Amino acid sequence: QGNSASGHSKSASCAACHGAKGQAVNAIYPNLAGQNEDYLALALRAYQKGERSGGQAGVMQAFTSSLSEQDISDLAAYYASLTPLK
Amino acid sequence: QGNSASGHSKSASCAACHGAKGQAVNAIYPNLAGQNEDYLALALRAYQKGERSGGQAGVMQAFTSSLSEQDISDLAAYYASLTPLK
Repeated sequence: QGNSASGHSKSASCAACHGAKGQAVNAIYPNLAGQNEDYLALALRAYQKGERSGGQAGVMQAFTSSLSEQDISDLAAYYASLTPLK
Repeated sequence: QGNSASGHSKSASCAACHGAKGQAVNAIYPNLAGQNEDYLALALRAYQKGERSGGQAGVMQAFTSSLSEQDISDLAAYYASLTPLK
């Protein structure tokens, strides 16, 4: 199971684009705050496996390449725990 | 520019998985309510171009295959206009 506090501590490089609170700094990036935990983990794995290409996918593959399954679970739990803004 | 009312009228097949208000019916799917309009359009184009594979990407490629650029803009505007829940 993912630990959101651990995920927070692992999220520094994510925040550069996805924002300190999971609200993207630019509209070409997705907001992550309040996204479904399962989907977040699936998306991270898809980037890691190279199943997404084009756009920013290469950046995401690089950032996710060193993540363990626990890291992915923790990051997913962290962003799912945040409140989406509008 | 996307028209959110037109997007709503084009969103029936999206709602089966992503929910009537952009809140996914299953946690393996992403919530779309309040997501950034630009990102939503980029993601739809990525699925359409076959730049995403694995998971539900094949389903999304099928659903997006017949979308025009205007359809994509309208759907992105519609989902971006919805208020995310938590």
